[in-house]
Amino acid sequence: MKKEIIEKSIELFEKKGFTQTSIQDIVDGLDVTKGTFYYYFSSKEQLLMDIHYEYINQLLERQEKVISDKNCTSTEKISALIALLIYDIKEQGPSGRVFFREIRHLSDDNIKIIKEKRNQVRLNIEKVVNEGIEKGELRDDLRPDIITFAILSLSNYSYQWFKPDGEISAEELVNIYSDVIFNGMV
Amino acid sequence: MKKEIIEKSIELFEKKGFTQTSIQDIVDGLDVTKGTFYYYFSSKEQLLMDIHYEYINQLLERQEKVISDKNCTSTEKISALIALLIYDIKEQGPSGRVFFREIRHLSDDNIKIIKEKRNQVRLNIEKVVNEGIEKGELRDDLRPDIITFAILSLSNYSYQWFKPDGEISAEELVNIYSDVIFNGMV
Repeated sequence: MKKEIIEKSIELFEKKGFTQTSIQDIVDGLDVTKGTFYYYFSSKEQLLMDIHYEYINQLLERQEKVISDKNCTSTEKISALIALLIYDIKEQGPSGRVFFREIRHLSDDNIKIIKEKRNQVRLNIEKVVNEGIEKGELRDDLRPDIITFAILSLSNYSYQWFKPDGEISAEELVNIYSDVIFNGMV
Repeated sequence: MKKEIIEKSIELFEKKGFTQTSIQDIVDGLDVTKGTFYYYFSSKEQLLMDIHYEYINQLLERQEKVISDKNCTSTEKISALIALLIYDIKEQGPSGRVFFREIRHLSDDNIKIIKEKRNQVRLNIEKVVNEGIEKGELRDDLRPDIITFAILSLSNYSYQWFKPDGEISAEELVNIYSDVIFNGMV
């Protein structure tokens, strides 16, 4: 039931926003009582924190797998890190959108925890960019910190427009983006 | 007074969100009465629409100026279009963040109007990308629609992290981003 509550609230938070979704809306949508809700969560804020926590933790775990893969070049790893986020739109689209939009409704302590983990996502990418420069795969006049923001921008902004069942597949999008940032448009 | 109301509400919407800001909060912040508010706006939603409308119209006007400049190459124009959005963070940061985050609180008719104008922003960029391909300045195997999303991603996502008074200036950021997308990282 915990999973169902999380799924239903992601659906409602995405549609109506966190503030305008009440616990009553969530339990009505599942045909259970408020008692059931409070058995699993102490508050709507704690539920929102669970959504953020789960989203960022699964992302960090999958990043670690990519980074530690000894059979990949740095550029392959960068493409794989972009792919992680873009493939997620199909699987985790709504929870990703809730993640990006509703963080301000967490308590200050929880915002701090999530922001630290978000920094870790960024630093994981920066590590691979640095590795690529050191190995001579990437130009040595790049600023790894800013390049990392460029990679994050491409990946994260795709939540705003990319339709995984549209004309372009996630795989094609990753290939086009990798081609542009590795080889340039000129 | 209309301008002051708009400025104060952008400040409050950015900080507390549209839903959690009341008309009372806005007039309290300016030390005026609700009557003053209703003299200029019929509702909080109309005020939000004004913010969206003004933001997108000034952006479209400035895009037109860049696009019609006969002394610029296509790559110069693309850099200038990225610059428009990134320079805005200093001048119009809060209204840009409200713009990106609160659109769902507009009425369906108003969302349609703003989305059409947002499409125009995107199509203006695509036009310049197409021009660059036709003139031979850009590779002819690019997909202009997807490349345009990449350019929009870099520009728009910078609202999430770029601090105009930080270590990197807006000008440097535009130069680094232009260098990456034109010349590539490899």
